[in-house]
Amino acid sequence: MNQAYCIATYRCYDDKADFHKKAQSIAVGLTVGSWTDLPEARKKEMEKHLGRVVSVDVHEPEGAAPGERYADLKIAYPDINFSRDLPALLVTVFGKLSMDGKIKLIDLDVSDDFRSAFPGPKFGVDGVRELLGVHDRQLLMSIFKSVIGHDLPNLKEQFYRQALGGVDLIKDDEILFENPLTPLEKRVEACMDAARRAEAETGQKLLYAVNLTGPTSQLAANARKAIAAGANALLFNVLAYGFDALHELSRDPSITVPIAAHPAMAGAFYPSPHYGISAPLLLGKLMRLAGADLALFPSPYGSVVMPKEENLAVKDALLDRSVPLRTSFPVPSAGIHPGLVPLIVRDFGHDVVVNAGGGIHGHPMGTEAGGRAFRQAIAACGAGIPLREAAAQSGNEELKAAIEAWGVKE
Amino acid sequence: MNQAYCIATYRCYDDKADFHKKAQSIAVGLTVGSWTDLPEARKKEMEKHLGRVVSVDVHEPEGAAPGERYADLKIAYPDINFSRDLPALLVTVFGKLSMDGKIKLIDLDVSDDFRSAFPGPKFGVDGVRELLGVHDRQLLMSIFKSVIGHDLPNLKEQFYRQALGGVDLIKDDEILFENPLTPLEKRVEACMDAARRAEAETGQKLLYAVNLTGPTSQLAANARKAIAAGANALLFNVLAYGFDALHELSRDPSITVPIAAHPAMAGAFYPSPHYGISAPLLLGKLMRLAGADLALFPSPYGSVVMPKEENLAVKDALLDRSVPLRTSFPVPSAGIHPGLVPLIVRDFGHDVVVNAGGGIHGHPMGTEAGGRAFRQAIAACGAGIPLREAAAQSGNEELKAAIEAWGVKE
Repeated sequence: MNQAYCIATYRCYDDKADFHKKAQSIAVGLTVGSWTDLPEARKKEMEKHLGRVVSVDVHEPEGAAPGERYADLKIAYPDINFSRDLPALLVTVFGKLSMDGKIKLIDLDVSDDFRSAFPGPKFGVDGVRELLGVHDRQLLMSIFKSVIGHDLPNLKEQFYRQALGGVDLIKDDEILFENPLTPLEKRVEACMDAARRAEAETGQKLLYAVNLTGPTSQLAANARKAIAAGANALLFNVLAYGFDALHELSRDPSITVPIAAHPAMAGAFYPSPHYGISAPLLLGKLMRLAGADLALFPSPYGSVVMPKEENLAVKDALLDRSVPLRTSFPVPSAGIHPGLVPLIVRDFGHDVVVNAGGGIHGHPMGTEAGGRAFRQAIAACGAGIPLREAAAQSGNEELKAAIEAWGVKE
Repeated sequence: MNQAYCIATYRCYDDKADFHKKAQSIAVGLTVGSWTDLPEARKKEMEKHLGRVVSVDVHEPEGAAPGERYADLKIAYPDINFSRDLPALLVTVFGKLSMDGKIKLIDLDVSDDFRSAFPGPKFGVDGVRELLGVHDRQLLMSIFKSVIGHDLPNLKEQFYRQALGGVDLIKDDEILFENPLTPLEKRVEACMDAARRAEAETGQKLLYAVNLTGPTSQLAANARKAIAAGANALLFNVLAYGFDALHELSRDPSITVPIAAHPAMAGAFYPSPHYGISAPLLLGKLMRLAGADLALFPSPYGSVVMPKEENLAVKDALLDRSVPLRTSFPVPSAGIHPGLVPLIVRDFGHDVVVNAGGGIHGHPMGTEAGGRAFRQAIAACGAGIPLREAAAQSGNEELKAAIEAWGVKE
């Protein structure tokens, strides 16, 4: 094949199907529609539009119980069939097919040509580190304790307390929409003012990812308003608007700040073994292709659980250096306290954002201490010091208290 | 409660959970964040932001096997917490929660106040009938046999053959994107020219739903281009762009034609019993709220199967007269041949679009005859004549041939 193809991998459960036949019918049905009944002359013209079966890998363990037989099908779709945008690609490979029995889209390898239409993350891991001036450790993000029903002074105070603890990023709650108590621009002004006050004390830079919401057609304008008001990052509920909305924001030269992609609604897609779109594709590969500078996804440590191998596959998709796009910062979220930092570092490595809510606000000595405890844990990991040993050192009282409250896993 | 709430219903599987506690934690966690630890004075201010548990209906049959225990939870979310758009509502009720175990969003009752921000379908069932001048029977839609790799003369000829058979609507394939062989405006011109030629012969009006594609920010402009070129309907892959994109198109006064919502990617959401969003909500209620004049969804007759009770629930959501919005035309699709028309009419009633592809193009006497056979079947049902009896009448040779090929179900 000397033309460009995007290759979709499906996992397809069926106790009886002829998977080779099924793969063939997908490759033809979702491209040229019919093949065998075409005249030979016409086949020549149509060949470049024809999908190809790349592989059919049947898993049929001996004595398989009903419901256990499946196959992984790889189908190559000619780029010539679709425009260079994610709605076109997704509708081609998983539009009608999504409704055709127990079938899950587990991977998608786009061609170099298709990818060339995507600038990807504008900042990515390196750019975000550059903005913060932090290169030698994992980053720390915190979220507000609660936001709905709170006014600007309250949010500002919450922000300030978090900032004082030494966090690198603070993000809005994803359910904070335009509202009279804390409207977008006023909120940005209040929080960035708190950020400056904290920076004067800590000497540390901070990104505030304000939640970008509203009608689809107003997203870019709202982003510009937020930036004009001082916002230095954005949070975006990608799946509520579609990947193309993120792509358009990320490629817009007037949007000059990193975008953190929130996984809201992702659970409607990835957890079923039989249906939907796999987490590494949905929250990893596609988020990065669409331009997420940071990508949040469920951590393997909290109550919102995703199997650890899936977590790591999401991370790998965000950081894969063989893909010619900037990398996206992995932000595993939920259930994180300072005692988990060694585990996070072991699982995710150097380029990870440690993201905490209750693990910061619920610290026995308060929010500010919560941030400090995390920074002490991150520093201990960087220095190769076991957490309990670090907690015993003078100056690490906050880490000590955190460990007393939540324990350590390393 | 004398304030407005939107009520979400979830089905939640868990062998052991205290579902009442879970419901309470959702109602608090997805609204004010925390409640019991708030000072009494603060509770007064926060009360209007607090979610409420409406009901918890536990299904725990005696001797239930593992995996069978579930509960339906109804939670009321105060409108005051979110803006009047579907991304905000969906992120509120099923953002983070979608990732919290085996939980499926099965229904969503929006408040009158929330709904008032949605004009809904611009045409709806009555408006589409008005445009076509057809009030006394079910409508007939056909789709192209194949589109990818075909040029304008070929598409025009396919269109003309379908139109001559007496179909009311012809829709593009949802996987036909902007391409050099059949670019949007040229395609509209060619097909509408074929429509006019056919109308001169049949005396019958016809809507052509051209596929609206491209970058999100260009959708409205592309729609206007198509309309300027003569398009009198649009097809739109709603779920690839998000419900808000449909809402914005439908409320745009410059988009003066009906929009048919395609269900591409819907199978990533609805089929799992444990995860996702139910079909009646996804393809029925939300499509209508977002402004679909016609809504396609899998029929209960074809290979792309949805249980019939779900099909009928989708239909009911589209047609429910108690909702103060125009109704949306139900278009059950896939696997439909003329012999199924009595069943379709019995299942779906008067306001349904009979939508066929293979059942028209695969007719033994050709495409044109395929359309005629369907129209004869629809006429027979309207006159209360059993299909086999109608097929024996003179003038109904096409129906006779269709029944010989595919049989009858009535």
